[in-house]
Amino acid sequence: MIFSSCNSNNNTGTSSKATAENPFESKIDSILELMTLDEKIGQLNLPTSGDITTGTAKGTDVGERIKEGKVGGLFNIKTAEKIYEVQKIAVEQSRLGIPLIFGMDVIHGYKTTFPIPLGLSSSWDMEMIEKTARVAATEASADGINWTFSPMVDISRDPRWGRVSEGNGEDPYLGSKIAVAMVNGYQSDDLSANNTLMACVKHFALYGASEAGRDYNTVDMSRNRMYNEYLAPYKAAVDAGVGSVMASFNEIDGIPATGNKWLLTDVLRDDWGFNGFVVTDYTGIYEMIAHGVGDKYQVSEQALKAGVDMDMAGDSPSVPAAFIKTLKESYENGKVTMDEIDTAVKRMLTAKYQLGLFDNPYKYCDLDRAKTEIFTPENKAFARKVSAESMVLLKNEDQLLPLKKSGTIALIGPLAKAANNMAGTWSVATDQEKSNSVFDGLKEVIGDKATMLYAKGSNIDYDLELEQRATMFGKGIPRDGRTDKQLLDEALKIAAKSDIIVATIGESAELSGESSSRTDLGIPQVQKDLLNALLKTGKPIVLVLFTGRPLVLVEENENVPAILNAWFPGSEAGLAISDVLFGDVNPSGKLTATFPRNVGQVPLFYNHKNTGRPLGNTEGKFEKFKSNYIDVRNEPLYPFGYGLSYTTFDYENLKLDTTSINMDGEINVSVEVTNSGDYDGKEVVQLYIRDLVGSITRPVKELKGFQKVEIKKGETQNITFKISVEDLKFYNSELDFVAEPGQFQVFVGTNSDTKMMKEFELTK
Amino acid sequence: MIFSSCNSNNNTGTSSKATAENPFESKIDSILELMTLDEKIGQLNLPTSGDITTGTAKGTDVGERIKEGKVGGLFNIKTAEKIYEVQKIAVEQSRLGIPLIFGMDVIHGYKTTFPIPLGLSSSWDMEMIEKTARVAATEASADGINWTFSPMVDISRDPRWGRVSEGNGEDPYLGSKIAVAMVNGYQSDDLSANNTLMACVKHFALYGASEAGRDYNTVDMSRNRMYNEYLAPYKAAVDAGVGSVMASFNEIDGIPATGNKWLLTDVLRDDWGFNGFVVTDYTGIYEMIAHGVGDKYQVSEQALKAGVDMDMAGDSPSVPAAFIKTLKESYENGKVTMDEIDTAVKRMLTAKYQLGLFDNPYKYCDLDRAKTEIFTPENKAFARKVSAESMVLLKNEDQLLPLKKSGTIALIGPLAKAANNMAGTWSVATDQEKSNSVFDGLKEVIGDKATMLYAKGSNIDYDLELEQRATMFGKGIPRDGRTDKQLLDEALKIAAKSDIIVATIGESAELSGESSSRTDLGIPQVQKDLLNALLKTGKPIVLVLFTGRPLVLVEENENVPAILNAWFPGSEAGLAISDVLFGDVNPSGKLTATFPRNVGQVPLFYNHKNTGRPLGNTEGKFEKFKSNYIDVRNEPLYPFGYGLSYTTFDYENLKLDTTSINMDGEINVSVEVTNSGDYDGKEVVQLYIRDLVGSITRPVKELKGFQKVEIKKGETQNITFKISVEDLKFYNSELDFVAEPGQFQVFVGTNSDTKMMKEFELTK
Ligand SMILES: [Mg+2]
Ligand SMILES: [Mg+2]
Ligand SMILES: [Mg+2]
Ligand SMILES: [Mg+2]
Ligand SMILES: [Mg+2]
Repeated sequence: MIFSSCNSNNNTGTSSKATAENPFESKIDSILELMTLDEKIGQLNLPTSGDITTGTAKGTDVGERIKEGKVGGLFNIKTAEKIYEVQKIAVEQSRLGIPLIFGMDVIHGYKTTFPIPLGLSSSWDMEMIEKTARVAATEASADGINWTFSPMVDISRDPRWGRVSEGNGEDPYLGSKIAVAMVNGYQSDDLSANNTLMACVKHFALYGASEAGRDYNTVDMSRNRMYNEYLAPYKAAVDAGVGSVMASFNEIDGIPATGNKWLLTDVLRDDWGFNGFVVTDYTGIYEMIAHGVGDKYQVSEQALKAGVDMDMAGDSPSVPAAFIKTLKESYENGKVTMDEIDTAVKRMLTAKYQLGLFDNPYKYCDLDRAKTEIFTPENKAFARKVSAESMVLLKNEDQLLPLKKSGTIALIGPLAKAANNMAGTWSVATDQEKSNSVFDGLKEVIGDKATMLYAKGSNIDYDLELEQRATMFGKGIPRDGRTDKQLLDEALKIAAKSDIIVATIGESAELSGESSSRTDLGIPQVQKDLLNALLKTGKPIVLVLFTGRPLVLVEENENVPAILNAWFPGSEAGLAISDVLFGDVNPSGKLTATFPRNVGQVPLFYNHKNTGRPLGNTEGKFEKFKSNYIDVRNEPLYPFGYGLSYTTFDYENLKLDTTSINMDGEINVSVEVTNSGDYDGKEVVQLYIRDLVGSITRPVKELKGFQKVEIKKGETQNITFKISVEDLKFYNSELDFVAEPGQFQVFVGTNSDTKMMKEFELTK
Repeated sequence: MIFSSCNSNNNTGTSSKATAENPFESKIDSILELMTLDEKIGQLNLPTSGDITTGTAKGTDVGERIKEGKVGGLFNIKTAEKIYEVQKIAVEQSRLGIPLIFGMDVIHGYKTTFPIPLGLSSSWDMEMIEKTARVAATEASADGINWTFSPMVDISRDPRWGRVSEGNGEDPYLGSKIAVAMVNGYQSDDLSANNTLMACVKHFALYGASEAGRDYNTVDMSRNRMYNEYLAPYKAAVDAGVGSVMASFNEIDGIPATGNKWLLTDVLRDDWGFNGFVVTDYTGIYEMIAHGVGDKYQVSEQALKAGVDMDMAGDSPSVPAAFIKTLKESYENGKVTMDEIDTAVKRMLTAKYQLGLFDNPYKYCDLDRAKTEIFTPENKAFARKVSAESMVLLKNEDQLLPLKKSGTIALIGPLAKAANNMAGTWSVATDQEKSNSVFDGLKEVIGDKATMLYAKGSNIDYDLELEQRATMFGKGIPRDGRTDKQLLDEALKIAAKSDIIVATIGESAELSGESSSRTDLGIPQVQKDLLNALLKTGKPIVLVLFTGRPLVLVEENENVPAILNAWFPGSEAGLAISDVLFGDVNPSGKLTATFPRNVGQVPLFYNHKNTGRPLGNTEGKFEKFKSNYIDVRNEPLYPFGYGLSYTTFDYENLKLDTTSINMDGEINVSVEVTNSGDYDGKEVVQLYIRDLVGSITRPVKELKGFQKVEIKKGETQNITFKISVEDLKFYNSELDFVAEPGQFQVFVGTNSDTKMMKEFELTK
């Protein structure tokens, strides 16, 4: 058995930074020499575990396949106990004893769940974001897992797309910073440590540009747009040493990403220097048949040759595994070479070395860790803080918020008691029912200081079928026998008895997420009707909004005095929401995706081009023969970077220390930010540049810096940024990354709409 | 004066087919030698005429500039008399006497107007479409014009974009056929004839893909999509010998088309062999400053070097002319060469030779022609036929249509009497008031056989401002003093007295067209409310729909028994609509653009890719983890190619004469089409192919043939098509135009949704 022969080495892992040379090469070469073709192909196969329950693995089909050396890893199996049992089969019963890798969708936390990624990104707090990944890695690895299919860093400008919830919004600069934070959080500086996970950046590439926002749809864009607007976060993850990359479902230039050699080899490996392994998304290879590029043999060959190393394999008659069912025959027919297969196998074995699995295959199977490291009070307290930091205050007329803990509060809405929806989409490991609901959270925080009344008010949607699609995966919100009218009447009755209404409405957790694309971006109509009825009572209303995407909120913004966007806040949802509602936490989140005025404006994003006929006003006045719509103004409802606080921040004295730099130069930017309101608070100070003239057209604004700072009531802080030539570079027509001499504008402010500006020149 | 020295030559023009050599070269060289730099740059300048009224040209500013040799042509001036007068200044008072070229927006007819292009394309009748261009050329040239800014062939898949009305829909194959028909119609086989116009294909290129459907917005797509999905119609126009090409407003790969050398030289001239001239769109060069690629000198240089020959120049302080204000200085500073200027001048002079203007500069100024050749009874009769052929019957429950000329008919709707809206957008030369309204047309056709009652029913829109934007350019529909309620009540009153309601509602003419992009694709709400109120009366209703774009008609399709889409039918609108309503013409139009179910589905088009996770059903059932929306089915409301008839057509016996061809082969396809209904009628028999496997992914269907055939009631016709390897070619990853061996499907049927299919194989 290979395993015993390798057991004695003392290598405890390698830096997660991509390096050109592989310290495990000679060991891997020795293993390769012992492997049969079947065993090699087996290493490239990543099936689901099926429904293994503890103590039964041996007898299952997958157990048999592991023994035969036909499995390289498993995904979505958890607990150290089960994973130990399965690993034991691989190590002790397969011919060569090569350990398995265990992957899981650890997306935004494990048992302790943090806000959905779009929410988390709204915190703009990189240190905190990194720590969420660290906590997730600790919990998941305590449950036997060593590899996560995260971070998802797909830029998206289309709120119709359900997976906008899983990404970090529309900006490549911010998205890159978050990609790095997440990779560092998961992998830390030692992949082989028993509390780190190998990260997998996904979905490579461009998945967020699915046409018409329909999931899995065709993607099409110019190379120039790819390089300047979409690829940066993937590259940042690679530069941060991410161990693996997942190929996306979509096509690029007419070739599915999973079989796209330009993407997976020329760009990823040759240009970017990635030397980890590439895994497909689930059934990605087999789906290339439906894309229309070949039969199962051809698509498998194409994927392997393009640079795919591991087949996240289907297991149904209609979508079976790909590599394991074809590569042997393809090799025998001369369609793929042993070299091509060996290259992939080496990468898989390298990953296992990096994870320390050859050193100790049971490294992640400490049967005690789970008891003390998962869903701990510390982790929950941290999640509560993270959730509060991620919420975005969209409106707060007459300082209705924060609320006082007194009088009678009516808590109304179908999401008020839906603990199981609070973790949001893609939270597969968590115990959804253990999240705290708004009802529970408020109750705990209020104690006996105020009275709380509750009514459901409405279902999620008038349409039962749509509601069911939107509450899948254990997130059902039971419909009781009552009619819409009865639900509404009950709500109005308790509203009448109350001093203030907290309306908890919006999307249910699965109304966004994978395969939950919407063409209507409003709050579901039954809940809008509920809200309108509540507004008619004349009672003050705070709308606590749940959503996994930018929604159309024009009417709500017009009529509701206070709107707190809570996203899906995670397992400590109710407590975190209560913290913000009562002012124990002053909200500081800022949107990372534009909120449009209607779905017809989509895609709408802040860093667009100017066009040749830009509108001449920002007051919403229509101008014939300018670039605008006849029926809606151009500006979004809430721009990128937008978010209010209970206090106010004034910006003054924007200064550049020079108005001209050369290619080696740097500019120091400073601005004075004063907390001019009545609360201590945090502000995300944002810096944008505009390159006024380019060899290709340049965006009207691009984020190039931000700082989240805490400023006490009455205090003024001098905030400084450095702009270097690196920040001025872009990919030109030849896709060279260059800064061009010329005039630039620097904008600083509280969101992307800021007009505070100074100019400087870049000289040769 | 040059003119006299050239006057003696007998050349009467050249074939409109692009040829590599220029028969006028030596003459042009002699002229060039005599020209000053100012005169050369003057030839590249195309200002508006300003408000010249007959007899005053000499004294105007433009008259002065013509004398100085600073004008190459004028646009949007008309009547032989005025043009004669202006031409006389050029010929007799400028130093070299070079004649001017006179261009105009002759888009869908001149005085006699035909349906808007999107409507006209719905006729699928190439011979008829060509004749509309022939008629337009005859009329316009009788009014002194020799150059038209048509055809517009921009493929668009976005009904939000207002100019979808000016194009031919979403299909590159059909769009190419129409491009050829239009060029042939305008140019005929002799550009120098006094009744032909030089055509100008526009907008080169990709303008129809304006992001988010907002006019003038950024365009971005892969080269592969350009070649396979968007460029074909422009190329078809070039292959047909179009004399000029207009650069589009949008950018391509980050470079405005107007300054895009790859586009205007590498593709257009070097690859496609175009040797006519390139004109900008209005102020196109100057707008490059706003795009952000340089100052007025730089953008002018860039445009010239890219391949622009003529500057359609602005004339305002904020957007002045470009070439004439900069090129001399740029030449003197060594930024542009005399060669570059000469090349453009030669092309302009060549065009004037081709038009016969050096032979006789007053060739198009026959002062008598206008009286006998414009808006003639023959032309109007033809327009009436064309309009009827272009309408699309969307629904006809229980054969409500055709109507009988008896009983009492209620004509209701704000467009019933709006003669000035019937010609639709971009009909700048026509006397809009001379179109016949539905009211007029019905009255004439009914005579005294039936009673007609009329009520306006509603305004165009609740919002007066929006209505004004949508009824610009002399198309106002006066609001009388009545409230919405009073208008509705009157309508309900006459409805109550009637046997049937004809509701004439939809868009006003300028709710589509340039700079009329919409985010809401419904019939304006006030008219929807009118329609719903009329439906409640229980009277049978025929909806005569006016629109310049695909609308969202889900509710109307659900509730209204009969819907006739009349588009904007042109000057004979009312009569043509009456012809169809009463069955004097059996409708045969077919949609050339998909009608979506809601704006959130956009872009939605028939020739999409399959993706890796295509939906497994066509019954509108949601499938998790397949490519569909959670809230609407994938299928459009009305697919590409859709349109009903008063009769029915049955398709049987689809046959291929072989199931395998090689690269030299051809397949004969036949199908039997039977008119199984009660009326003689025309059917557009459509043939689509699907290339099942490709080196890049291929569309699920592509139109590759169609025939509009007349089939008598009870008759069966055997319809045959030929498929050659040319029809199977596409642009591969290297942008080579190739057919790849493999399996193909052939579909034949009544619209793009047809399932009638046979397979064949292409072998090496
Ligand atoms: Mg580890
Ligand atoms: Mg996946
Ligand atoms: Mg610049
Ligand atoms: Mg002519
Ligand atoms: Mg093929």
